Amino acid sequence: MKKMNKNNDLDSIINIIENNDRFLVTSHVNPDGDNIGSILALKIFLEQLGKKVEVVLDDEVPDCFSFLSYSQDIKEYNPELEIDFDVLFTLDSGDWERISDVADLVDKQVIVNIDHHADNTLYGDYNLVTDAAATAELIYQLIIELDKSKLNQDLATAIATALITDTGSFRYSNTRPETHQIMADLLDFDVDVNYITRQIFENNTYQSLMLKAKVLETLEVDETAKIAWVKIPEHFLEEVGATWEDAEGIVGYPRSLQGVEVAVLFKEYRPQEIKVSLRSNEYFAVDKVAHQFDGGGHAKAAGCLLECGLEEAEEKVIEAVKEEIRKY
Amino acid sequence: MKKMNKNNDLDSIINIIENNDRFLVTSHVNPDGDNIGSILALKIFLEQLGKKVEVVLDDEVPDCFSFLSYSQDIKEYNPELEIDFDVLFTLDSGDWERISDVADLVDKQVIVNIDHHADNTLYGDYNLVTDAAATAELIYQLIIELDKSKLNQDLATAIATALITDTGSFRYSNTRPETHQIMADLLDFDVDVNYITRQIFENNTYQSLMLKAKVLETLEVDETAKIAWVKIPEHFLEEVGATWEDAEGIVGYPRSLQGVEVAVLFKEYRPQEIKVSLRSNEYFAVDKVAHQFDGGGHAKAAGCLLECGLEEAEEKVIEAVKEEIRKY
Ligand SMILES: [Mn+2]
Ligand SMILES: [Mn+2]
Repeated sequence: MKKMNKNNDLDSIINIIENNDRFLVTSHVNPDGDNIGSILALKIFLEQLGKKVEVVLDDEVPDCFSFLSYSQDIKEYNPELEIDFDVLFTLDSGDWERISDVADLVDKQVIVNIDHHADNTLYGDYNLVTDAAATAELIYQLIIELDKSKLNQDLATAIATALITDTGSFRYSNTRPETHQIMADLLDFDVDVNYITRQIFENNTYQSLMLKAKVLETLEVDETAKIAWVKIPEHFLEEVGATWEDAEGIVGYPRSLQGVEVAVLFKEYRPQEIKVSLRSNEYFAVDKVAHQFDGGGHAKAAGCLLECGLEEAEEKVIEAVKEEIRKY
Repeated sequence: MKKMNKNNDLDSIINIIENNDRFLVTSHVNPDGDNIGSILALKIFLEQLGKKVEVVLDDEVPDCFSFLSYSQDIKEYNPELEIDFDVLFTLDSGDWERISDVADLVDKQVIVNIDHHADNTLYGDYNLVTDAAATAELIYQLIIELDKSKLNQDLATAIATALITDTGSFRYSNTRPETHQIMADLLDFDVDVNYITRQIFENNTYQSLMLKAKVLETLEVDETAKIAWVKIPEHFLEEVGATWEDAEGIVGYPRSLQGVEVAVLFKEYRPQEIKVSLRSNEYFAVDKVAHQFDGGGHAKAAGCLLECGLEEAEEKVIEAVKEEIRKY
């Protein structure tokens, strides 16, 4: 049976905050900037209201967010943890499973679900789920409603980090007028945006730069100059001492080529196991190609896994993209 | 004798627009996004007010801005041009010389100087020179004062392009609360920010990507891991068919290394002519090093030219940076 929970319980959530004292705040696995920024902003705010707040995630805080004040107070889940709380906040998590093992800490407490994902399952006892560029926009809204005077530099920096991450520094089309209005307000609190963006976007390891150099040299373009692709054979990683994490963002290079509509990255995870990332710039629906190989995704970002050699995967997928792009 | 012109003649400028019919709009040589965006925004606005407007630049419009509506109406200066106008607008140009040969078109017309550079010489008969992230912020202010109803998608897109260029997509520290507030207003006019940022920041030639690959492989880091540098020997360009324009932005790679404070790029323009670009992330004043080699610039971005071989330049400059960084 389809749940019929409401998606805008802002008033009830304000009541819950006012009438409780012990809170647990969490978010999804594989934390990103909206995750970390939102939970820290809420933690800082609730503590300023005199509440007891614990923050637990299923994963470690990624290094690039360790500059955020109080990030060292975020605990990584382990089965021995014992936390007393009355209310759980789950932030930026579209369904209950996204908080992973942190769910084991929950018994009969009230669950408050605050998120901006359109497909959120409204699993909370109370939900604040509305369209926004980032969950942090909703946290900001909550703070403004409850007590705007608690805004300070640490809090503003946490929210700014979340907005900057989820909008790619205001470049993605999820950016709304409200996003810029919030950012305007936050800048009054001496937020060092230049520093934040360096931590998020310009924070390469030596190995990742060396890997990029090697991968760029594999760049190929089709006859129409609309399809561009690169590949990462497993031995590249060994040769420069890189990990798959160092490969993040590499599909942006073929995508950045003038006139290119479809970009593809082939990663040789293991021999006979090729992970394929597909991206498009404007009109091409890459998920259609991904589906042909039992993959999934969205129109502009999709992926699939092929159990074959690197060259064979390259041939098959590029052929499928060519076939498809002729239809436009 | 120091000029004592005022720097905020907004009211007079509004009068001038209302009481004249023929305008010439120009901006500085080597046009950037603030230049092109500001002149197009002003042109579109004045034409909507029923004015006759010509736009002339000393250079061609760079390809990456040709997506802007009416950019094809911007004329490149040539001595045969004959333009009748009563008022000249110079935008984004700190001194009179910045408009280069376009000055030859001017006789006794009224000069209106609108700019955001702090060292603007106030050379106009009327000047609107105040602190702002981009000149386009001042154009926006002028439009709001005069007739907000003239804002439309083309105009908003031109101003947004200017703001995005001069703030590096709201990453640079010149970004003010007002910048975000203006951007919030502009988004009401269906500005496609994702498309704009792709044209400005993600618009690589094949040659530039190949050049980046080669240059990345020259990456070196000092023992303290605070100084990182790359170099471009002349033969790199020939090998990949690139021009020096394809090298733009490359100093961002050594600068993006985790923990690095100072980044240096060595370009072998000609044998025995090495152009050096210095950048810092937080505290190091790179202009101090540039001055040692008769160069100049700011604390975070400076440059100099050395008349010696590539290796010798590398040794001298890196030694000077090491010497200097010990003092911090
Ligand atoms: Mn999010
Ligand atoms: Mn400018």
